Amino acid sequence: MPILIDIRKLTIIGKLIQHGAKNVADALSTMADIKADIRIKTLSFVEPSDIPREIGDGTFHHVNIRLIEPPYGVFLMAFGDRTGEEIARHMTGQDVDGELNQLQKSALQEMCNILTSGFIDGIANTLGTTINMETPELAYGDAHSIAADTLSHIHDDSLSIVLDSVVDLHDEETEFQLRIFLIPDPGAFVNMLDKLDIEEIREIESVSGIHGAD
Amino acid sequence: MPILIDIRKLTIIGKLIQHGAKNVADALSTMADIKADIRIKTLSFVEPSDIPREIGDGTFHHVNIRLIEPPYGVFLMAFGDRTGEEIARHMTGQDVDGELNQLQKSALQEMCNILTSGFIDGIANTLGTTINMETPELAYGDAHSIAADTLSHIHDDSLSIVLDSVVDLHDEETEFQLRIFLIPDPGAFVNMLDKLDIEEIREIESVSGIHGAD
Repeated sequence: MPILIDIRKLTIIGKLIQHGAKNVADALSTMADIKADIRIKTLSFVEPSDIPREIGDGTFHHVNIRLIEPPYGVFLMAFGDRTGEEIARHMTGQDVDGELNQLQKSALQEMCNILTSGFIDGIANTLGTTINMETPELAYGDAHSIAADTLSHIHDDSLSIVLDSVVDLHDEETEFQLRIFLIPDPGAFVNMLDKLDIEEIREIESVSGIHGAD
Repeated sequence: MPILIDIRKLTIIGKLIQHGAKNVADALSTMADIKADIRIKTLSFVEPSDIPREIGDGTFHHVNIRLIEPPYGVFLMAFGDRTGEEIARHMTGQDVDGELNQLQKSALQEMCNILTSGFIDGIANTLGTTINMETPELAYGDAHSIAADTLSHIHDDSLSIVLDSVVDLHDEETEFQLRIFLIPDPGAFVNMLDKLDIEEIREIESVSGIHGAD
């Protein structure tokens, strides 16, 4: 059965993502005293079956959470070894020598908590709701194992929003490259977008100082 | 009146853009003997009224054409002075000294023809149609004048697809940064997407060697 959305509402998806990213920057600042800009480099839409190919070759740190409130579905974030090491080094002040030690793993977990909750809260605020979520659990593996962990309860005809994002730290020449997959339940997602008025979004933007939609 | 699309068809928009970009690379190779990759850095959706802000400050070379066949609407491409000079230098072998000379302007016009027709043809092929178009005319101006030239006959409730794309030349350390706005008639565009089957797209991809959707 088709799940229909007014095509002009697509502009709202871009704004949702912008608000998510803005909220991540705020969360990094307040929760970890990290000043950073978050840039969304690409936004694309893929079918869930394409997600392993989108993740690509190699092994990745990743967290995923199931959203147990609308828009339901799954939030998945993955990043490579290099970004993992950068995060660990930045959070602990220790260089990574081969494997991450326990403190560094905890630092990664903490960063994932901040990024995930920052992003989901930002989207929820824009949607005028809250989205309670469990704590994401950090794992490590290849695209195949990530897909197996994440996508088992996703319908094949869902839509996945894929974001390549970069966290640019102000203080140093460091950036964290994160890939985010948002795979909402399509019916619930469309329902939320339908209720959202573009004028309401503009009001939120004028209050929070968000500009642009790219 | 809402113009409804099955949300799962959004994956097709990404593929359309991919095919347009692939076709631009082919056109550059056959028509100008330029070997290059085309990368789409960002894809976003904005309202037409946001286009001047998306174009940004400064002055830009730009071409726009009205599509007189489905999906109708407007194709707009803009690039800054630096990319204009890079194109002129690459096409004529002459460095740019202040203003572009007549030969360099012609070179820019020629490049715009190739890029525009390559992109539109790539999209048309994927849609299983042809989209005849007039020759785009090169102009130069700021966001305000571009919008006045381009958007006068666009409905305010249309949807604009915004692409930041990079043409990466194989032979040298040069890249052309182009911003593309596709502002189809929303009804005609949705109608075309509706007719398009994801399986047909896969077939086109397997023939033309296109992979990925980001």
